[in-house]
Amino acid sequence: MELLEGIYSRRSVRSYTDQVPATEQVLEIVKAGSWAPSGLNNQPWRFVIVRDPEIRRQLAGFTRYRHIIDGAPVAIAVFCDRSVMYNDVKDHQAMGACLQNMLLAAHGLGLGAVWLGEILKSAEQVGRLLRVSSQMELMAVVTVGYPAETDQRSARKDVQELILAEL
Amino acid sequence: MELLEGIYSRRSVRSYTDQVPATEQVLEIVKAGSWAPSGLNNQPWRFVIVRDPEIRRQLAGFTRYRHIIDGAPVAIAVFCDRSVMYNDVKDHQAMGACLQNMLLAAHGLGLGAVWLGEILKSAEQVGRLLRVSSQMELMAVVTVGYPAETDQRSARKDVQELILAEL
Repeated sequence: MELLEGIYSRRSVRSYTDQVPATEQVLEIVKAGSWAPSGLNNQPWRFVIVRDPEIRRQLAGFTRYRHIIDGAPVAIAVFCDRSVMYNDVKDHQAMGACLQNMLLAAHGLGLGAVWLGEILKSAEQVGRLLRVSSQMELMAVVTVGYPAETDQRSARKDVQELILAEL
Repeated sequence: MELLEGIYSRRSVRSYTDQVPATEQVLEIVKAGSWAPSGLNNQPWRFVIVRDPEIRRQLAGFTRYRHIIDGAPVAIAVFCDRSVMYNDVKDHQAMGACLQNMLLAAHGLGLGAVWLGEILKSAEQVGRLLRVSSQMELMAVVTVGYPAETDQRSARKDVQELILAEL
């Protein structure tokens, strides 16, 4: 898939078929995330890959979008490592770049994914469930699978509305 | 360019030839940024495109990386619109996704770009120079041009070091 075409055709995919993505595909998604740029190249991203149905069920209980995590063959919890962070705004931006690379990579691999942020309200419980150190700040959960949805629509403002000035 | 290949081969390009990118290319970069995902689809990104040499010179004065902005045919100041933000962490992540799309789009178009964050220390002065409303929070400046550098190296941690657990 061509890069620009991939950026424009990516959609949030919230329901998946029963087909399970291969380990290599999931690792490719994580690797793509890790190739985001970060300030001082501090690479603050850390990942927990969850396939186990019981742990996924418990994870799902921490968000009102539980059906998405329950119905996904793979969930990737994405953390920012506080011990290497240097600036909250810039590190959170870098994490967003990492998450976008993950979504694009999933799309490029023929998979579908969605960035779940509402679960951040339960960040502490997620950290305990996944037994990560308290230095790990939950950034999002990304669910991954083969898309069951088709014909997803999305819309954006016209680019001219977003440009404040051309100088 | 293939999507995954683009993610892995993108580099921060800090020096540029004299060739000036076309208006359509710059708009494509902004448009690609706008196709990032955002929480509640609030699309908080706003842009000021700077080509004017005198304004670029003044902008360059606000960062220790002045030679990059001085030497780039185009600088895009990227802002987050506080009036549509709903959660600082999630909005800053969305802005990072937008910036990553911009860098990838530049790469896909055969251009080079770099995400400049150090200039955030001068956010107020940048806002005044570009005459944007005080609701606009400076997120980064992205410089764009045809790459003068070749053979840029970059490195990332091995993906296995970044995976805290597979459950």
